[in-house]
Amino acid sequence: MSSTFGKIFSVTTWGESHGAGVGSVLDGCPAGLPLDESDIQAELNRRRPGQNKMTTPRDEKDQVRILSGVFEGKTTGTPISFAVFNEDQRSHDYAEIQKWYRPGHADLCYDLKYGFRDYRGGGRSSARETIGRVAAGAVAKKLLKQVAGTEIIAWVNSIGEVDCGPLDLNTLTLEQIEASPVRCPDPAASAKMEEVVMDARTKCDSVGGTVCLLVKNPPVALGEPVFDRLDALLAQAMLSIPASKGFEIGSGFAAARMHGSEHNDELFFDGHNYHTKTNNAGGSLGGISNGEPIYCKVAFKPTATISQNQNTAGRGGENGQLLAKGRHDPCVAVRAPVIVESMAALVLADLVLQQKRHCL
Amino acid sequence: MSSTFGKIFSVTTWGESHGAGVGSVLDGCPAGLPLDESDIQAELNRRRPGQNKMTTPRDEKDQVRILSGVFEGKTTGTPISFAVFNEDQRSHDYAEIQKWYRPGHADLCYDLKYGFRDYRGGGRSSARETIGRVAAGAVAKKLLKQVAGTEIIAWVNSIGEVDCGPLDLNTLTLEQIEASPVRCPDPAASAKMEEVVMDARTKCDSVGGTVCLLVKNPPVALGEPVFDRLDALLAQAMLSIPASKGFEIGSGFAAARMHGSEHNDELFFDGHNYHTKTNNAGGSLGGISNGEPIYCKVAFKPTATISQNQNTAGRGGENGQLLAKGRHDPCVAVRAPVIVESMAALVLADLVLQQKRHCL
Amino acid sequence: MSSTFGKIFSVTTWGESHGAGVGSVLDGCPAGLPLDESDIQAELNRRRPGQNKMTTPRDEKDQVRILSGVFEGKTTGTPISFAVFNEDQRSHDYAEIQKWYRPGHADLCYDLKYGFRDYRGGGRSSARETIGRVAAGAVAKKLLKQVAGTEIIAWVNSIGEVDCGPLDLNTLTLEQIEASPVRCPDPAASAKMEEVVMDARTKCDSVGGTVCLLVKNPPVALGEPVFDRLDALLAQAMLSIPASKGFEIGSGFAAARMHGSEHNDELFFDGHNYHTKTNNAGGSLGGISNGEPIYCKVAFKPTATISQNQNTAGRGGENGQLLAKGRHDPCVAVRAPVIVESMAALVLADLVLQQKRHCL
Amino acid sequence: MSSTFGKIFSVTTWGESHGAGVGSVLDGCPAGLPLDESDIQAELNRRRPGQNKMTTPRDEKDQVRILSGVFEGKTTGTPISFAVFNEDQRSHDYAEIQKWYRPGHADLCYDLKYGFRDYRGGGRSSARETIGRVAAGAVAKKLLKQVAGTEIIAWVNSIGEVDCGPLDLNTLTLEQIEASPVRCPDPAASAKMEEVVMDARTKCDSVGGTVCLLVKNPPVALGEPVFDRLDALLAQAMLSIPASKGFEIGSGFAAARMHGSEHNDELFFDGHNYHTKTNNAGGSLGGISNGEPIYCKVAFKPTATISQNQNTAGRGGENGQLLAKGRHDPCVAVRAPVIVESMAALVLADLVLQQKRHCL
Repeated sequence: MSSTFGKIFSVTTWGESHGAGVGSVLDGCPAGLPLDESDIQAELNRRRPGQNKMTTPRDEKDQVRILSGVFEGKTTGTPISFAVFNEDQRSHDYAEIQKWYRPGHADLCYDLKYGFRDYRGGGRSSARETIGRVAAGAVAKKLLKQVAGTEIIAWVNSIGEVDCGPLDLNTLTLEQIEASPVRCPDPAASAKMEEVVMDARTKCDSVGGTVCLLVKNPPVALGEPVFDRLDALLAQAMLSIPASKGFEIGSGFAAARMHGSEHNDELFFDGHNYHTKTNNAGGSLGGISNGEPIYCKVAFKPTATISQNQNTAGRGGENGQLLAKGRHDPCVAVRAPVIVESMAALVLADLVLQQKRHCL
Repeated sequence: MSSTFGKIFSVTTWGESHGAGVGSVLDGCPAGLPLDESDIQAELNRRRPGQNKMTTPRDEKDQVRILSGVFEGKTTGTPISFAVFNEDQRSHDYAEIQKWYRPGHADLCYDLKYGFRDYRGGGRSSARETIGRVAAGAVAKKLLKQVAGTEIIAWVNSIGEVDCGPLDLNTLTLEQIEASPVRCPDPAASAKMEEVVMDARTKCDSVGGTVCLLVKNPPVALGEPVFDRLDALLAQAMLSIPASKGFEIGSGFAAARMHGSEHNDELFFDGHNYHTKTNNAGGSLGGISNGEPIYCKVAFKPTATISQNQNTAGRGGENGQLLAKGRHDPCVAVRAPVIVESMAALVLADLVLQQKRHCL
Repeated sequence: MSSTFGKIFSVTTWGESHGAGVGSVLDGCPAGLPLDESDIQAELNRRRPGQNKMTTPRDEKDQVRILSGVFEGKTTGTPISFAVFNEDQRSHDYAEIQKWYRPGHADLCYDLKYGFRDYRGGGRSSARETIGRVAAGAVAKKLLKQVAGTEIIAWVNSIGEVDCGPLDLNTLTLEQIEASPVRCPDPAASAKMEEVVMDARTKCDSVGGTVCLLVKNPPVALGEPVFDRLDALLAQAMLSIPASKGFEIGSGFAAARMHGSEHNDELFFDGHNYHTKTNNAGGSLGGISNGEPIYCKVAFKPTATISQNQNTAGRGGENGQLLAKGRHDPCVAVRAPVIVESMAALVLADLVLQQKRHCL
Repeated sequence: MSSTFGKIFSVTTWGESHGAGVGSVLDGCPAGLPLDESDIQAELNRRRPGQNKMTTPRDEKDQVRILSGVFEGKTTGTPISFAVFNEDQRSHDYAEIQKWYRPGHADLCYDLKYGFRDYRGGGRSSARETIGRVAAGAVAKKLLKQVAGTEIIAWVNSIGEVDCGPLDLNTLTLEQIEASPVRCPDPAASAKMEEVVMDARTKCDSVGGTVCLLVKNPPVALGEPVFDRLDALLAQAMLSIPASKGFEIGSGFAAARMHGSEHNDELFFDGHNYHTKTNNAGGSLGGISNGEPIYCKVAFKPTATISQNQNTAGRGGENGQLLAKGRHDPCVAVRAPVIVESMAALVLADLVLQQKRHCL
């Protein structure tokens, strides 16, 4: 069941880039949540290609349909089925990529695993698969908002060597993020990032980036000790996104260079709740949310497909060169924030529903 | 089932630091694997406290018993039950930590989640819980060795600001690693790390570190597309280890600063197998192992318990100070490598058993 | 994940009787299995309403589409998505069944569980949900046929007080079964059963029945000791079919009246394989298949919806009477055999894929 | 994970009849439930051998230890580990059963599955494995009692051809059941059953029986539509008990002979709750509990081991005869009720914890 994620609030995705469509089935959503297709579409629009010149020129509408699980505008507690039918599939000549393995791609690995592969586009390893996740994630976000007033936002923190400047996380809004063509809420950095992306595009190259995630007002006590720690499930969720290479929470890798006396977050009680003065923990201690904002970072490698000649090997064992064609994002990080948010929402919604059972 | 990990080769751990003991049940191990208690004990000895002055002076033997699943020296295919009974539990005065939440610890979170907690030591959040993982991991290693000649080694890559120098990963051995009191195979760096650890101990402080993992001769085609990608499961596995804050595979966070033209690993066929000239992928593409060595890094924060006065809050909402006592590792990274190896082995063994079914 | 069945070969169903459609996602099917929509349609045609006067006059075509997971006529190892869009939904007046709970139906229970319900038809509890199972079951059957030459057939064994006569299970064929309008391969019993069904229909009543299942050439060694015994998974599978009330395997309830000396199946070796002279075990011992035919029986209650006045209670706590309308099967057992076969195939296919890992 | 049962309230059993011991790990139990070893021991005493002449003369104390998960007399929310160390293992000569497959036993199947087996006693297929279930079931019962005042009782309903007479289920108590040496609360039937059992023992034979289960005051709305229907999970649970051959709920197989007009349970509202006049449903409609008592029946075959010469085959393919020795129950049904209750409690406790999440 490698296409299923979550124990109680559980999503199963299906579909390939060049098949009939993509979608998902969301099982375990509580009954009574107001939901219609526009809730989903709003999120898919943030993910879809062709938004601006920072992304692939493929223009796909990604129109979603809800096929089950909603009655008279509310979820019924039964599986919610989402489908997006594929369009804009130019008829391609696939002879080249049928023969040659694209470097940095899953082509060889699918052949090793399955004996053959759907060589049109990325097949199942295409980022189009994440449409089903974003659809389910939109429901998870609504659930978290209603249950605890939780808000989840993600933004581009770096592209290539350009880093986002310091941000005030208390006031940061989704609007500020979405106002930037590269989704970086620091206007100066955003402008430089745009240049880096355009430069990569011009040179038929691609460039990597990082995405930051912030969860405001997370429910407390989420996360199950040992293997289903909040940190562990977020890590799995993020590393399951195509092109991701790293994950850190709170102080992350910087923690490894610190002393305990500087890293420990001092606790205090404000008369109502417990808080910490700093948030090196990133909102999770012992794998359980402590109520502070959850803060994570995800690394994305540069897009593997570049329109340059590359040395590679072929299906029959021949060594040679491939010049990949097609229209691709020069930087996957730009469209990644809504996917990062969705995966975080899926983790948290599932843990919220698991958590309700812990105290008699 | 947050104490269970793995779909087919599946381990369930149990136990608290100050209860009767700790252990695990390993279900789904194939029949016929030679196994006795000494296989397990050898690995537990690498994890146990009191090994040298780099670790906590608590001297625990951690003697393991196999209670089921082995008959006439071989696994039978039925659950293998491991138990280590606790000893060296000094009678403590727990009044202080019963009252005050230790900064950087799970104390508050357990109270938020469960309403009360076993306040003796770390309870379930203690690193003693990892004994059950290391026991099961020892079996996973034997299985991988027999199935594919796979070898898994981990070492300390940095402590505080001291980094391990360049290593030849082709020749690196476990013996070189274990020869260092801090498990760093670079002798010069090892000596400096020892100083950093001793300095932290002297100052009643602690220090963070990173651990690197290398899997030689991994089976190809491991990892399930989408949510159970090899990268995703390794990330979950590593972030489930107490005190871990980050994970990266292959080029990791550095990938986010690179261009596609430098990051893509060139493919070639050597007459027998496919290989890549570089290994930025870290052995996994599209979430599936490509046969190159799997290479990861894990960040560990400094030990939370330090014998200094720290501001914190108490169970009743009071704000005050806590001076934690007890004998603790100044740097958890030093004993972490065998845990990192064990978690990797559990991931890979489970995927090997899942993989056998993919092609008709 | 109550809409998901199977660990490795795993199906997730979705859809309601009066929503946009029904379907399922099948994850974990090995790559390389020849498959097209006609394979699925053939099975759905055995399940669909309106086949003859023994079944509901609702005439639904139940045309299936495969939306993913098949490329160039073969499965790719990725999720296979099936959809059947609903049609023939007469515009009904739902006022009555919105108000009154139908006796013998899930109406009250859905309200107790979810707070409200999709009151059009059976909603999620409709037998239309089984379309997704039959679609996935068709793939399971193909897989089992290819892997082990396994054949799975089911037939109506009794309707009301009419029992099927003795059958020669060695020669029984699906053709013989499907030749009967009530799917009973004993022509004399079939004729009497038709009368019982027509009589129930005429009297605006319904009638129960039993269905027998036979698996010829099952793979040996299927079933996991303890909770995933073959018997236990078959029992879960069968009792998950709407209207089922009982399950037995082999000698079943009759075994409770026997002595060990008559019940034990004598073993012998025929020079090639082990066999038993009798098959009281029904093909499973200790929860593991022994190679003999697997033989089970499932009890179905009479259709709950009958067009008679029935005393019942309403949503607001009122007590009164309901006269249900609609077009319903007088005997659900008649269309049940393909569902029984499908559930058995799903169990066996999942166990086959789990089994490959047991011996090194 | 075939040794694990339950999604949230989840038990993993381990151990063989002739190994060091047997036990289980119960994960997911809520924190704060009062629990000590005597709660568990009381249930194990109902299961243990050597209770009276109706059971095997093997006298095993089955003394349980709780190794984790309980602190100051209450569950902590972390895994509860149970262990019973084996004793009274007479040194046997295993030469015969090492060579010959016992008819009616799992011996051949284990060899087919695993390539070899622990031939001492039943190994993993021994009923001693159920000790771990009964221990966890005792916790489940306490939880259900505390959450909803639920009571679960089971009794012997038939042995051989002797049936229990009509019972008043409203007044039936555990004390009445346990007062009978064969656990049949009808004194006249109990006396006849004792004769049947003694007769079987005298003749070196064994005899089958059925066990009935009654759940009073079950929580409403338990059971998840589709695959995790209450009926389906109970069926899996019961068929996972060694020697069980059949399961029915409510009217069960008798329903297959009835008409809808007689089978449908009339609903009414009593001013406070909904009830049904009859209970053909057995407390579950659409797979969801409706609040009426849950009523099931389980069939057990006669004990496979009998001390008579039986024709059988050997490991090397030889055909011959086996005269099994050892001390065995002449009728497994007599000790089965507490196991049946435990499995039902495990199902219900898991569903209770899943249910808490269904309505916002």
